[in-house]
Amino acid sequence: MATEVICGVNAVYEVLRAKKRRVHEIYLAPGKHPHTVDHIQAEAKKAGVSVRGADRAEIAKIAKIDKNQGVAARVERFSYTAVEDIIDAAAADDPPGFIVILDDIKDPQNLGSLTRTAHLTGAAGLVIPKDRSASVGPAATRASAGATEYLPIAQVTNLSNALNYMKEKGFWVAGAEGGSKDMLYGYDFTDRPHAIVMGGEGSGIRRLVKEKCDILLSIPMKGAVGSYNVSVAGALFMGEVNRQRWSKNPCKSHTF
Amino acid sequence: MATEVICGVNAVYEVLRAKKRRVHEIYLAPGKHPHTVDHIQAEAKKAGVSVRGADRAEIAKIAKIDKNQGVAARVERFSYTAVEDIIDAAAADDPPGFIVILDDIKDPQNLGSLTRTAHLTGAAGLVIPKDRSASVGPAATRASAGATEYLPIAQVTNLSNALNYMKEKGFWVAGAEGGSKDMLYGYDFTDRPHAIVMGGEGSGIRRLVKEKCDILLSIPMKGAVGSYNVSVAGALFMGEVNRQRWSKNPCKSHTF
Repeated sequence: MATEVICGVNAVYEVLRAKKRRVHEIYLAPGKHPHTVDHIQAEAKKAGVSVRGADRAEIAKIAKIDKNQGVAARVERFSYTAVEDIIDAAAADDPPGFIVILDDIKDPQNLGSLTRTAHLTGAAGLVIPKDRSASVGPAATRASAGATEYLPIAQVTNLSNALNYMKEKGFWVAGAEGGSKDMLYGYDFTDRPHAIVMGGEGSGIRRLVKEKCDILLSIPMKGAVGSYNVSVAGALFMGEVNRQRWSKNPCKSHTF
Repeated sequence: MATEVICGVNAVYEVLRAKKRRVHEIYLAPGKHPHTVDHIQAEAKKAGVSVRGADRAEIAKIAKIDKNQGVAARVERFSYTAVEDIIDAAAADDPPGFIVILDDIKDPQNLGSLTRTAHLTGAAGLVIPKDRSASVGPAATRASAGATEYLPIAQVTNLSNALNYMKEKGFWVAGAEGGSKDMLYGYDFTDRPHAIVMGGEGSGIRRLVKEKCDILLSIPMKGAVGSYNVSVAGALFMGEVNRQRWSKNPCKSHTF
């Protein structure tokens, strides 16, 4: 079975706790905070996974990431969810679900950050293209603080087909585009299921995908520099969906 | 005069364009996109700054940052704004201004990202503590995409004193705290000037600062992983202020 090595305290902890994929072995450097060590060891014990001491240089070599926080895990490779399953679940959700589509995100840090935000704001799932985009490897899992273990993520060869299937299921497709005359904050996300499309760093949403969007929305912006970072722009979109859903039903839509 | 080397296409471009600080020399690696080269060279010419060819290894050595995008600039060190000036300007603003206070942010990437978002959402300025926090050096300038050149930033020895002065000026102080029973989305930021306090990565707002907060607000959250990243949490707070101000006056409060 193909394995990979993920690292970082949160990512390793969540990969153990979520049980989405098999964990083969944990590597733990000496000198970690006792709380962290207890935390990881308790979860590893529950999961029946052995914890092996390893110094930071060894972990850096195994994980191929220098900033590894002295904790790593050899795990089964990430497995994606079928896009139809994500769409069908979101369509059946009450209130109507939303799915985040990342068109052409190159940086696994951005992919990880957007995954974490999508999970925390209540997205039903994430859809990414197979080609020329960041995929869910160790760097994205790390940057997601382990949210990759909980949020269903689909990887598709053709985003247009996925969007067509969504439209058949009653979704509206809202794309993020700086400069669009329609504003994020005037728009109602609560009346039907939505796909929210975020374009790649710098380049924005590709033409063929943009043509599938029912509406393009921009974020009110002041100041002199170009634009929001894509992780922040995505957070503002997802945060707005979360706000609207929360405002309609404050009790149901948050869980601390 | 003390200088530092900043790098990255956006940061170098903005530092030239903003003219906040003196630029001594630009370093440009061969093989950059012609558009980028033209862009930088045009601004450098306007500012009377010489552009010198340098390969990427040399730029990495000068800038001490590997991911430098092949562009760097030797510039005068960042200079902070007096905190009273930021507060007085925000208090006089219409609609009432908001100031972002970062208590104990350690990571210059987060400082840079929050600076960029603060500038774009229309914050009047940023206040950071002098001790044990990230300061505005090359890494933060790079991560801010050059927003450090536009947003007034104060560095103070004592955040409590700054908060006392804000309160004298009629500010309300809203702190971000996960788990607080008061929710971000029920709260009105438009009726008076506000300070928004974000705590450090992991540790949150320190006790003495928290005692100065008039209200603690949390963000509705779903999902299994711990919490929002501080850059995202800050974006959700600032985005909500921006949304409320935009909703009250759609024409005045956005400028593309």
